[in-house]
Order: sequence, then C-alpha cells, then structure tokens
Amino acid sequence: MTAYDRLAARFARMATLGEASSVLSWDAATMMPTGGGVARGDQLAVLAGMQHTLLVAPGVDEDLAEAEAAEETDEWRTANLRLMRHAYTRATALPPDLVEAEARANSACEKVWREARRLSDFAMVRSHLEEVVHLAREAAAALASALDLDPYDALMDGYQRGMRTTDVSQVFSDYQAFLREALPRAEERQARNPAPLRPAGPFPIAVQEALCRRIAERLGLDFAHARLDRSAHPFSGGTPTDVRITSRYDEADFTQAVLAVVHETGHALYERGLPSAWARQPVGEAAGMAAHESQSLIVEMQACRSDAFLAWLGPELHAAFGGQAVPYGSANLARMWRRVGRSLIRVDADEMTYPAHVILRFQLEQALVAGSLTVADLPGAWNDGFHSLLGIEVPDDRRGCLQDIHWYDGAFGYFPSYTLGAMAAAQLMAAARRSVPGLDAALERGDLAPLLGWLRSNVHGKASLLEFNELLSQATGKPLDPSDFKAHLAARYLS
Amino acid sequence: MTAYDRLAARFARMATLGEASSVLSWDAATMMPTGGGVARGDQLAVLAGMQHTLLVAPGVDEDLAEAEAAEETDEWRTANLRLMRHAYTRATALPPDLVEAEARANSACEKVWREARRLSDFAMVRSHLEEVVHLAREAAAALASALDLDPYDALMDGYQRGMRTTDVSQVFSDYQAFLREALPRAEERQARNPAPLRPAGPFPIAVQEALCRRIAERLGLDFAHARLDRSAHPFSGGTPTDVRITSRYDEADFTQAVLAVVHETGHALYERGLPSAWARQPVGEAAGMAAHESQSLIVEMQACRSDAFLAWLGPELHAAFGGQAVPYGSANLARMWRRVGRSLIRVDADEMTYPAHVILRFQLEQALVAGSLTVADLPGAWNDGFHSLLGIEVPDDRRGCLQDIHWYDGAFGYFPSYTLGAMAAAQLMAAARRSVPGLDAALERGDLAPLLGWLRSNVHGKASLLEFNELLSQATGKPLDPSDFKAHLAARYLS
Repeated sequence: MTAYDRLAARFARMATLGEASSVLSWDAATMMPTGGGVARGDQLAVLAGMQHTLLVAPGVDEDLAEAEAAEETDEWRTANLRLMRHAYTRATALPPDLVEAEARANSACEKVWREARRLSDFAMVRSHLEEVVHLAREAAAALASALDLDPYDALMDGYQRGMRTTDVSQVFSDYQAFLREALPRAEERQARNPAPLRPAGPFPIAVQEALCRRIAERLGLDFAHARLDRSAHPFSGGTPTDVRITSRYDEADFTQAVLAVVHETGHALYERGLPSAWARQPVGEAAGMAAHESQSLIVEMQACRSDAFLAWLGPELHAAFGGQAVPYGSANLARMWRRVGRSLIRVDADEMTYPAHVILRFQLEQALVAGSLTVADLPGAWNDGFHSLLGIEVPDDRRGCLQDIHWYDGAFGYFPSYTLGAMAAAQLMAAARRSVPGLDAALERGDLAPLLGWLRSNVHGKASLLEFNELLSQATGKPLDPSDFKAHLAARYLS
Repeated sequence: MTAYDRLAARFARMATLGEASSVLSWDAATMMPTGGGVARGDQLAVLAGMQHTLLVAPGVDEDLAEAEAAEETDEWRTANLRLMRHAYTRATALPPDLVEAEARANSACEKVWREARRLSDFAMVRSHLEEVVHLAREAAAALASALDLDPYDALMDGYQRGMRTTDVSQVFSDYQAFLREALPRAEERQARNPAPLRPAGPFPIAVQEALCRRIAERLGLDFAHARLDRSAHPFSGGTPTDVRITSRYDEADFTQAVLAVVHETGHALYERGLPSAWARQPVGEAAGMAAHESQSLIVEMQACRSDAFLAWLGPELHAAFGGQAVPYGSANLARMWRRVGRSLIRVDADEMTYPAHVILRFQLEQALVAGSLTVADLPGAWNDGFHSLLGIEVPDDRRGCLQDIHWYDGAFGYFPSYTLGAMAAAQLMAAARRSVPGLDAALERGDLAPLLGWLRSNVHGKASLLEFNELLSQATGKPLDPSDFKAHLAARYLS
C-alpha cells in the first residue's frame, strides 16, 4: 500500500463516519422524538471526535509528506492530496483545548440566543457572544498562521475554500453601487404593475406534499436515492446516494413549500451529481458553501422562477389545488414570486435586496474578527449599517442583530457564501444559456434536463477538483463576477 | 483517572457508537430509499469496526487487570467490570481474519438464501451454508477455548449470557413431554368451541396506525421518547431514550398490526426501563435475548391476550373500526387470537406449538456445530424431526429448513432465546400476580401500570446486574422452570 492509498483509505473512513453523522442530523430534525435529543448530541459529538482523531492521527503527516514527494500525474489524485493536506493543516492548527472551549461556548451562547431573540434582549446574550467572538478570534489567528492567510480569510476559507476578502469586497462594492440605483427603479416599476392575485386556499398539506414530490422528480431528483420530509426549517442533507430534502407546509399558502422544495432540490441534485468514482474523498466533495448555494439558486431563482418555468408550473399548481385559473397564470405567479422590497429579515428578503443583508453581515463580522468592533457596539453598528444599505430603520434587535443564528453559534465567515452563490448561479446560467440550445424552451415544458446536463459536466462532475474561481472560469470563461447577476436582476426587475 | 474510570469512558464511547448504528439500522428498515443501501452497509461496517477497535485496543487488558485487582464493594461496578472482561474475552477470542471471513460468507449466503427460499431450492444455497457452518464451527471452537465452555454453549452465550445446553435441554425435554399430551387435548377442546367470527373490514390503515399508537401509549410507552413506524417486518430498535418500534398493516385484517405493536411495545418498555444511571455501560444493558423476549411476550402473550385485557381492548377496536359489536367481544377475540394448531412456519405458530419449532432448531444447530450433522443431511433431518415433534409432513424446503434467515446469516445459538423468553414471561407473570394485588383488575381497564411497576423493579431496573437465572430467581423464587408456562397454557387451552 502506498502512502497515498493509506491516506485515501483513511479519508474514506472519515467520510463514511461523516455520512453516518449526516443521516443522524437529518433524523434529529425530522424524525427524532424530543426525548432523544441529549443522546443524539452525544452520538454526533463522538462521531465528530472520531473523525478528528482519524485526521490528526500519528503517521498522517508522514504519509502526506511521502505522497507529496511521489510523482503524480493524475490531476484528480493531485488535487485530492492537496485537499487532504489542507484538511490536515486546518485540523492540526487548532489546539484541542480551543476546539473544546469553542464547542462549549457556542452551544451555551446558542441556547441563550434563542431566548434573547424571543425577548429582543441583546444584553441577555452579550457576554456569551463576547466569549464566542473571543474564541473565534483565537481560532482565526491560529488558522491564519497555519494557512498563511489573514484571520478573517482563514475563517471564510472553512466555508468556501479559496475565497478572499479582497475579491469579495470588490464584488460587494460593485453590487452596492448597482443596488443604490436599481432598487428605487425596481420599486417604482413594481408599483406601476397590478398587485398579484392570491390563489384561494386552503391548500391541503397532503396535496402540497405530493405536488412538491412530483416537482422535485420533474426537476430530476430520483426518489430511489432521495427522500422528501418535513422539518421546522427546510434543508438538504443525507449522503450522495441517499439525499434527503425537507420542506415545511402552511395550509393557507403553498408558496413557501414549493419554493423551499425547488431550492433544496438544487442542493440535492448537486450531491447526486458528484462523481461516484471519487466518493468519500476530499476531491469528490461539493466545492464549498458558495458553490452549493449556486446550485440551489440556479434551480430556484434562475430556472424555477423564470417566465418559462412558471408557464409550466402554473397549470400544475392549478391542477393540484383547483379553484380559479387566473391566479395560476405565469404573469401572476411572476408578480407573486418576484417582488422586491426593503425588509428587515434576511431569510425573507428578495433576490435583489438579499445581498445587502449579506454585505452588512460581511462588514460587521470582519470588524468583529479584526477587533475593530466590540460586541457591545454591535447593535448600534448593525442599525446604522442597515439604514445606510437599505434606507430603513431597525425597530428592535430581534429584527436586527439577533435575527440569525450564525454568530451566536460561532459561524463567522459563512454569510458571504449566500451572495457569492447567487452571483455564481447567474453567471453559470448565462453560460449554460449560451452553450445549450433550447434550455428555456425545455423549461417551458418543466424540463430541467438540458440545464442539468450542462451542470453535471461543468459543476457537479468536477466536485472539488478546482478552486471556486477556477471552476467558474472553466465553466463560464471568467472568475466570479457580479455582472451576470446584475444583468439578470435588470432583466427581471427593471425592464 | 482510575483504570475502572478509563474503562467506563471507553465502554460509554463504544455504546454511543452502538446507538448511532442502532438508529441507522432503524432508518435502513423504515426510511432509507433503496439506493442508500450500499453506503449504509459501509457506514454500519465502519461503526462496528470502530467499536471493535476500541474494545481490543492496547491497554484495555492492563486496565481490566488493574481494575480487577482494585478493591470494589459496589455490586453494580463489580458486575460491570465482569461484563467488560467478558466482552473483551469474546472480542479477542476471534482472529480478525475469521471475523472478516464470517462477515463475507454470511452476507453472501444470506443473499443466495433469499432466492433459494423463493425457489424452494436448498441445493442452490448448500455450498454457501457449508461455508457458513464451517466458519461458525471455527468461531465456536475459538470462543469455547477462551471462555472455557462447550462450543455450542459459547455461541448461545453470545445471545443470552449464562445459558447452557444442559439447562436448556432439560427444560425442552420437559416441554416436549407436556406438548405430546397437551396438544391433542387442546385441539379437541378447540374443535368443540364455535369458530371465531371475523370482524368485517376493510380496516383503513391510518385508523389502525392511530389505534396502535393509542394502545402503545396506554401500555405505558411515552412518545416523547418513542416512535411507531412501518417496516416489512416489525421490530424494536433505537436507543433507551429514543425507542423505535415498527409494525406492518393489512387493510383486510388488523390482527397482525395490533399484536405486533403490543409485542414490540414490550421490548421498548424494557429498554425505557433500564437504569439511566448505568446507561452506556455493559451492566446497564438488557440482560440478553431471552430476557428481552420475556419482556415482549409478557406484554403480548401474558397481558394483552388475557381475558382481562381483551375485555378492555374489544370496545377500543370496535370504536376505531365500527361495524358489528359481536366480533369484538372478548370471548370472540380470545377464540381468534388464542388458537392452537400444527403449522409449518415458526413465525406463524401459536404459543403452544412455537416451542416445538424452536426445539427442532436447537437440536439441529447443536448437531451442525458438533459436526454430527452435515449440511447435506439438513433437509432430511429437518423433515424427520418436524414430523416427530408435530406429526405433520414438510412438503418442501421453503416451508422447511429454508424458512428462517438465522443460520444462513451465521446466527447459531439464537433460537432457544425465543422459547426461554416465553417460559420466563409466564414465570414472571405468575410471580407478579402473586405480589401485585389488582394486576388483572387493572388489565381489565387496559392498565398495565401495576405489572409494569413490578417489572421495572424486578427486571428492567436490574439491567445486566444478574445472570438470567439469578434474575429469575430473585424475581420469582426459582431459576428458569417451564412449570409456570405449562400451567399458563393449561389454563388457557385445556381447561
């Protein structure tokens, strides 16, 4: 057995434990009775500990060095080895005491945050968040030193490898300038259009669920390798041969269920399209959180909210729910599901203003990690920043800096992925349209196959072979660039 | 940290991995799309491998020796340490090559067996079973030498610690003599009674499922720590704080669903009643497979099929399904659910003839392990033995020696547990009746609480503190003894 083969076997074992964790996490969110929660936490902690132990075990460093010294011509194996080294460097950069302290502080803070958010009481969680930020800064410094990166970049790299603040800042400033001009125009145009008609409910949940399943199948999800279930918050999980998406249902409105399912189906199709020859190896994994978000958003925002797809979807909805046909016309669905507006809550934001929510968080978390913003000053900085970006006042912290779980759970550097993903989705869609004839004609038949085929070749099948920007360059001819996203928004909301 | 504490932490870790496996196995049987099967097999194999590695790791032997040498007065800790040593001895007795060869051979044989059973073609699976038996004999010899037991006893010990062939043979001969005389009398008496009336269906599956859930709750299962789902074969799984039972449903007949749920609820109540202070330690586990079966059968056969409980259950069934009331009378339910008869299939057998099915397998598997019966001669020996025990001819191997998965999956020594459990259930029920006033009066109200309270104190709460016979002795005043079981059958079928 060569050093590379030993490493490959080790990483496969780690990935297999990761699959077990993934299914157990899915179960915790969908099936588990509440009384199982404490034991489940232990199970997941033991599995995570075992994965970590396997990664930092004696001999791994020597195997990495030996494999790196061996001649290697296969680009997949070369990339795989590079990613193994990267994972090893990240895992060994943090002293075990710090990892434990972070786990404890994050878990404690997150619990208090739930209550603080409910009561809109930032003071209640402040000292917990201070500890979380303190430890995150320590971790960022340790990772930065091991990876030779700036501290915030070292954190961002944990969610989307290769992403750097300089690139992100530039893309985000460009977008801010666009938004300042575009948002008022989009609002004006929207105000001139008729208000959307709301289809008359109720919409029985069993009917919604069966419809969502049919839509996911139509989009290309094969239920011999997938499930659709219910959870408090929609998500996509499971493993590449057993992907599990969830949605939530409201009898009064099917919007949320349907849009969540098409979004999660995008994530699931990515996992299903990863190359099975590289399963359970670092190079065979999805390319990062921004890449993943690009795949959910290309399906949801680019494909399924397009005029073409809505022309197919409307009659499907009408057939499922009955009642008057007019609200299910594609023009009305477009008015219903493509509205812009200045709102306080990120997860409810439309695709044009969503990046503003992300930009605010990107700026604030950089400052928190740099130490130039204290936790005590966070609510004020949030409210000022929000007003400056979207021109509205934040009435309370519940709808301000307490709204998202991320920071309170120790996740700094994640937020940019959402908007980088949205931009990448537009860029990939534009490239797919250029190279796949009949892509939109197929969407009019509810047929995603041409788009999916192109994504299989250009994104899914590449897994983690390339860095995010290189993946985009090979697929679209350029690294991440906001111009296709801006063009998409202009076409949809300004013309 | 003392040696004992190190061992306790190690066994807790192993048990936590075991919990993960248990939930993943439940998922595989209830939720998993077929396409997830291959990856799930890998996940379970890796988890089993990690548990094994933790158990046989360097230093464990030394820790055991050090802990054994230390003074210890707490009986739970003493028993826990003894069970750790026992687990270690079993795990280190088998060379890794043999364990792997067994896993491969069992898995291959089981696959072929599915087809061979369908086609009733023993020749098809014969060579596979020969290999399985060959390896099982090797394993039995290795375990026997490590545990200082006879080979077959060493296998049986893996399912029910402390059970020995000499005890089992005596109990089984005693029962054979009883059956020879009792079965014809029970059949005669049954023939004189009116045939049971079948309630008129269909019985909508959603109604059955909701009813089954209510019954399980009524029996004491708390759904904050439990689930009820569907699977091809009913089972009980999960973990002590998150027990998961399953059933299967037939719209034409609710019998199977209801009886499976009460049976599995018995298993689940045992797991729920294990002492939480000893969770994840060997001494905190259920006392073995015979002990477990005693808990499902005391709920199903002793409590729920009693006249008292049927008097409560009948009106519940009638309220759920409607239609005529007469078939739901307790006398008719008793005639329906307490019939004896000579049948070919173990899993369909009634409680009086079921032991004959087990005795046949016990005799044949002893001979296979001893080498006095060849696989080639198995079908003939089966058919002869079956005729001699129950007086009927076996028409084909599908309904003969191909019917059960156990041997084809390498499980030798398991079968006796079923009947030892049935006997223990009767013995425990008799003791509970003696010491709990109003036990049957409570059953007439569908109230299992008095019985359950007694079981909590005398069985569940003892976990693995005592060997099976000692557990029975402390609870009932005597080790396993078939007389209460015979008395139960005589009262139910002969008087």
